Amino acid sequence: MNKKIHWGIMGLGKIAHKFAQDLKLVDNAVITAVGSRSMDKATDFASSYDAKNAYSSYEELAQDPDVDIIYIATPHSLHYENTLLCLNHGKSALCEKPIALNQEQAEEMAALARSKNLFLMEGIWTRFIPATHKLLELLEQKSIGDLHYLKADFGFIVNAPPESRLVDKNLGGGALLDIGIYPLYLSMLVLGNPIDIKANAILAPNGIDQFCSVIASFPNNTQAVMESSFISNTPTEAFIYGSKGYIKMHRKFHQSEKLELHLYESDTTQIFELPIKGNGYVHEIEHVHERLHANATQSDLLPLEMSLQLTRHLDRIKELIGLKYT
Amino acid sequence: MNKKIHWGIMGLGKIAHKFAQDLKLVDNAVITAVGSRSMDKATDFASSYDAKNAYSSYEELAQDPDVDIIYIATPHSLHYENTLLCLNHGKSALCEKPIALNQEQAEEMAALARSKNLFLMEGIWTRFIPATHKLLELLEQKSIGDLHYLKADFGFIVNAPPESRLVDKNLGGGALLDIGIYPLYLSMLVLGNPIDIKANAILAPNGIDQFCSVIASFPNNTQAVMESSFISNTPTEAFIYGSKGYIKMHRKFHQSEKLELHLYESDTTQIFELPIKGNGYVHEIEHVHERLHANATQSDLLPLEMSLQLTRHLDRIKELIGLKYT
Repeated sequence: MNKKIHWGIMGLGKIAHKFAQDLKLVDNAVITAVGSRSMDKATDFASSYDAKNAYSSYEELAQDPDVDIIYIATPHSLHYENTLLCLNHGKSALCEKPIALNQEQAEEMAALARSKNLFLMEGIWTRFIPATHKLLELLEQKSIGDLHYLKADFGFIVNAPPESRLVDKNLGGGALLDIGIYPLYLSMLVLGNPIDIKANAILAPNGIDQFCSVIASFPNNTQAVMESSFISNTPTEAFIYGSKGYIKMHRKFHQSEKLELHLYESDTTQIFELPIKGNGYVHEIEHVHERLHANATQSDLLPLEMSLQLTRHLDRIKELIGLKYT
Repeated sequence: MNKKIHWGIMGLGKIAHKFAQDLKLVDNAVITAVGSRSMDKATDFASSYDAKNAYSSYEELAQDPDVDIIYIATPHSLHYENTLLCLNHGKSALCEKPIALNQEQAEEMAALARSKNLFLMEGIWTRFIPATHKLLELLEQKSIGDLHYLKADFGFIVNAPPESRLVDKNLGGGALLDIGIYPLYLSMLVLGNPIDIKANAILAPNGIDQFCSVIASFPNNTQAVMESSFISNTPTEAFIYGSKGYIKMHRKFHQSEKLELHLYESDTTQIFELPIKGNGYVHEIEHVHERLHANATQSDLLPLEMSLQLTRHLDRIKELIGLKYT
């Protein structure tokens, strides 16, 4: 039997709650400690999930000797310094996406993890859900023939106060980094590294992107059309088109529980129901456990190199649309 | 009572049949003559629709003294010369879209129509259907608030022999000119003239575009995301997003009979059923009649200036994707 993994959770917002709920569903996962800037928040959270230790600073959490790995769920702008803090205290880290605000930060984070021989992964949990595995299996089997192009949108109305991490530029706000990352990641998972990227955006008065569209060229004459938005409720679906048919990932595609395979020649549609466990993070957590038990310092399904490439392409899009975080 | 309008039809393919069927449904429309390169085709067509005269050449049709206006339904590559032929013989013309292969041709066609004081219009019949009128009415009423962006796709699998006008480069084949024109036209109708255009394509071995994606910026900080494809069956829907809600044009959006208005604040959806008459060309034909009866030389809803702009933007996209017709 595998030994227990002792988790720390840093940053105790909405997503941390969902993640903690899912940790409770995973064998050998122990929520050992939590850290917030607010002591009240930390003690409340700790008592809700039976965490032994509650801290009112990220530093104390990073120093807790009983913690193996820390889940970083702070605003985007803090991912860099929070990850370095964890690694420098000998803790592995699962850092929410986007792993950093730019490629330079991401490179430094990856280099430190490597030098410390610690596990580091970006929290793109969508990589590990059953629908993603099934999608890749269908593509591997050439079920839709040669790939042509991919289309994915992700949009919802954000009615957040200016201080919300979603819209505060100082916290890395904007549609691209928060949700545009999902279509881009999907396109890279399916088609590889973009060769050429074109992008447009509608910037808000404070300079963050409220809407961002991207068209990109990939190897083997393939393409992607992508859209992310904080100013419209969109279908939030993904389509992968090939020579023999297409696969539709039903909404919301990044947490899809339903794939539709349509084949042109037979004009048939096959539906795959692929339920996720818990809030969807269970699959990611189980993967991290498996890698930690194997003494790996990276994920084989979401390696650091992938996160570095993703960050590089996000940087390129930011440059194209004139979005600059300081 | 208005006098009868005597129509000629040039180019007797599939679309000419649909158009002729709709001419039969319009008051005061008479199918006077038809012209094809094949005499058999011409006589068959003429007898099917009770046309008085059948010609085995476009020249003879253009010369028929009983004809007022000619509907040009030849392949794209012939629109220019066929329109000039009609105008030079004193005939008004309704020329199928795209009105020309490039802006230079379109400018010459428009100039000749003006100098001859003859009516000329591009056959974007989708402009005249009830759904388009309703869409513009809803936008005029600011029902979805300030406009943000538009998204439209148009794609179907083309399994055509190499000599088909759809895929033969010499006939102006390719997805952009044949169907990509619909999303682009819609974006211009709703948002104005694009300020900046970016495009990608998947070109076929013969150089035509099988797939083309376009993102464009428009005045007032608005955008469009568009896609046309001959290699995928796509939803073929359009969405117009505004600050208060969105309008969905159900498939196929260019001949939509169903608009959906969704408002964010009330979270309500209103459906408008907007049936088209006949094959959809009835609305266009009635509009042309109305303009001819008014002795107009242009449409007020689809003026030549709009066609010239459209052609200019298509030229720009062709340049961006490396598509060149000789």
